[in-house]
Amino acid sequence: MQMELISEHGCFGGTQAYYRHASSEIGLPMRFSVYRPPQQSAGPVPVLVYLAGLTCTEETFMIKAGAQRYAAQHGIMLVAPDTSPRNTGIDGITADWDFGEGAGFYLDASAPPYASHFRMESYIVGELLPLIASEFATVPRKVGIFGHSMGGHGALVLALRHPDLFCSVSAFAPIAAPTQCPWGEKAFSRYLGDDRNSWLEHDASALMSRRQTPFPAGILIDQGLSDQFLDVQLKPALFEAACRQAAQPLTLRFHAGYDHGYYFISTFMEDHLNFHRQALHG
Amino acid sequence: MQMELISEHGCFGGTQAYYRHASSEIGLPMRFSVYRPPQQSAGPVPVLVYLAGLTCTEETFMIKAGAQRYAAQHGIMLVAPDTSPRNTGIDGITADWDFGEGAGFYLDASAPPYASHFRMESYIVGELLPLIASEFATVPRKVGIFGHSMGGHGALVLALRHPDLFCSVSAFAPIAAPTQCPWGEKAFSRYLGDDRNSWLEHDASALMSRRQTPFPAGILIDQGLSDQFLDVQLKPALFEAACRQAAQPLTLRFHAGYDHGYYFISTFMEDHLNFHRQALHG
Repeated sequence: MQMELISEHGCFGGTQAYYRHASSEIGLPMRFSVYRPPQQSAGPVPVLVYLAGLTCTEETFMIKAGAQRYAAQHGIMLVAPDTSPRNTGIDGITADWDFGEGAGFYLDASAPPYASHFRMESYIVGELLPLIASEFATVPRKVGIFGHSMGGHGALVLALRHPDLFCSVSAFAPIAAPTQCPWGEKAFSRYLGDDRNSWLEHDASALMSRRQTPFPAGILIDQGLSDQFLDVQLKPALFEAACRQAAQPLTLRFHAGYDHGYYFISTFMEDHLNFHRQALHG
Repeated sequence: MQMELISEHGCFGGTQAYYRHASSEIGLPMRFSVYRPPQQSAGPVPVLVYLAGLTCTEETFMIKAGAQRYAAQHGIMLVAPDTSPRNTGIDGITADWDFGEGAGFYLDASAPPYASHFRMESYIVGELLPLIASEFATVPRKVGIFGHSMGGHGALVLALRHPDLFCSVSAFAPIAAPTQCPWGEKAFSRYLGDDRNSWLEHDASALMSRRQTPFPAGILIDQGLSDQFLDVQLKPALFEAACRQAAQPLTLRFHAGYDHGYYFISTFMEDHLNFHRQALHG
């Protein structure tokens, strides 16, 4: 058996489940969650991957975001990985909430001592998605990706680095230019070392400025204006400028009164599921 | 100031807020949560109180149930108290997950050492609801109540004991006959002492069998058939029999594949908000 069922719950006519598996990319056990919509009993469905933010786990999105209702309406399977390897045994790796365990930044670390386990990009792209495709009835080549904050960074970067794998991408309050903010500088300097050129391969704004419209159907980003991290950490204006330069259609919406949390995310979740539905069922 | 704002978040066009206040009934600080729908900026709205289950807090419902979306549609304010006094200092009071702090059972304890702080019925009915009415724009005499598990017990019992205060009542997987199940026997024997006659005043099935249709518009109860607590702890059939005896209209729905958790609750939340809307806006 490639994966072990931890728990399973009826939810909006479908099934919410949690799994554990031995990850060869990570070299440790990893957990992930899957929501299967009711339509899957009749045949394959497209997949929408959600990447969560700092301190979160594979549970956060499924508990707080209220996405299952819309996934059940549209016949979309939801998949959420954990945000990093766990129990890595690296000295001090759980000391910071914005680095290390719970803060994998969805990249493959190249610097010791992180390089051996912190391989979240290869894990998601090369191991989790193939596992999902082999274990569940899914429509080939119909995979979307979205995420929040660090996971919004992850969604944009993975989509830009693997445009052949993802049909659609959106984000809530993403870290849109991690090479130019404290969270990103801290994480990238430790995971990737001092060569700032190598960091640009994991910066959505830097990647976008070199692309030519990898997502012709557009990208959707929602951002709260009461988000305490907006100016210092998130910087969506830099991604917006890069999209303009790359002729990439972007819908960047600012919302007065909304902060960085899941009350904001749940409010606009329906719009994101509708956005992905067009690409995944189109 | 009667209450202190802990945090406030934009949510579905309205505001999700958390408060702390010095409760005279409890004799300790208490926390509660309030969701104000967007309609409240234009005038008073009705109130729907949610009582959570064992181990929960004033946050659980607002984070996990996905009710704000429907409350925003219908112009209903949501209020959720904590499930018990906290930091009572009573010896061993946090040792059990099904008794004591986090498990107040929505009654006024009469037995020492619980009687001084564990006064959740008087707190909710005599202090929290008047506070809500004085601090927020609400429609007089338009208050509904619902809850889950221990909170389903609380909703049914408070509605039956105070039918003048509540227009509508519903429940998810309530402890429907607490004098006849282990959770209820444990809690009632400690909070109320050994006189089982006094327990009947806090048992929804016992109360109902003595009433004559206190809620002519009916009562809605949803129950999962994969709920591990159904047979031993919840016993909805006893409440159903009591409703029949009292000529109380009851819609008791059983759902295959659903368990005791919030994935079940969130699935049927829309139906409960629609049910209360009819009484609160009717």
